[in-house]
Amino acid sequence: MPSIFDNFPEGLSADMLQKLKSNVTTKQVSKGQILLRKGEKVGKAYFVRSGCLRSYAIDEKGKEHVFMFAPEGWIITDIGAHIHDKPAELFIDALEDSEVEVFNSELFSQFNEHNHNAIMRLLKRNYVLQKRIIMLMSATLQERYLDFIETYPDIVQRVPQKMIASYLGVTPEALSKVRSELAKKP
Amino acid sequence: MPSIFDNFPEGLSADMLQKLKSNVTTKQVSKGQILLRKGEKVGKAYFVRSGCLRSYAIDEKGKEHVFMFAPEGWIITDIGAHIHDKPAELFIDALEDSEVEVFNSELFSQFNEHNHNAIMRLLKRNYVLQKRIIMLMSATLQERYLDFIETYPDIVQRVPQKMIASYLGVTPEALSKVRSELAKKP
Repeated sequence: MPSIFDNFPEGLSADMLQKLKSNVTTKQVSKGQILLRKGEKVGKAYFVRSGCLRSYAIDEKGKEHVFMFAPEGWIITDIGAHIHDKPAELFIDALEDSEVEVFNSELFSQFNEHNHNAIMRLLKRNYVLQKRIIMLMSATLQERYLDFIETYPDIVQRVPQKMIASYLGVTPEALSKVRSELAKKP
Repeated sequence: MPSIFDNFPEGLSADMLQKLKSNVTTKQVSKGQILLRKGEKVGKAYFVRSGCLRSYAIDEKGKEHVFMFAPEGWIITDIGAHIHDKPAELFIDALEDSEVEVFNSELFSQFNEHNHNAIMRLLKRNYVLQKRIIMLMSATLQERYLDFIETYPDIVQRVPQKMIASYLGVTPEALSKVRSELAKKP
């Protein structure tokens, strides 16, 4: 079976290996079991050794939107908890009886300090992309626009409205309507 | 102005700094200038020191879909070229006169070999997310389904069709129709 340790470089010291191993636990998960719920603040990631996990969002109307599948060899998590200490936006459950390795994403930064910044930047980028997909699937235009302003606080006045509309996947007219609705709010 | 070197750890050797600097060039870009075109195989990334860049996809009907904006401090690239040597799916242009630092993503792996695997995994994940967003915005259901099979070759038979439909953002009936269309192709 694949293991998260396959991703680690060869030639690590015995001390380092020991330290890494103490941060990884193996867990058996039953089909249907929920590992993460929206709103929880649990910075855990799962490497799938066998079976299959899934993450999904639930919108305001109670509809499920599958965010990703994680068969053998994949890592699945809600990335927000790792970098911003944010409550989870996703649920994670098991589609099959599965064996997983549980770890914290800090694991990857533990070898040394040198690549910490590069890894943090990539994790942050993953978070922006995760949020974008969840929102494209399940959020209202108003929510997507507010998220856009949070992601890009400085550029709303700098780029043409039609490009912001294109980013959000709507017509300029629909964006204009949402902006005037927001302007009327107290 | 911010610089890609702000992201590097302190305490690097003079040799290492020299090596990194030789891989980064500063470039002035004029408003409207195109830095990357779909189909090109150029593994360059841009750190924006001032101004604002944008990446976008163009669909079969010639419609533009903004993928992301990159104001000061952001990195913008087409991730496929860095990890799979794939032709670009995105265009990158300048929305304002800008100053950028040009580099190859290998830059981040150059400190040492230890975190190379972690960085590659994160880059690959970024690529899957990039492709997913481009496709949600601009691809037909058939294209999205074929991409799904490529991303998850092993699980089409293992997970319920309604979950695959949910991942693709369509009804199970629409997915079923596309599958039977594909089955009829020679």
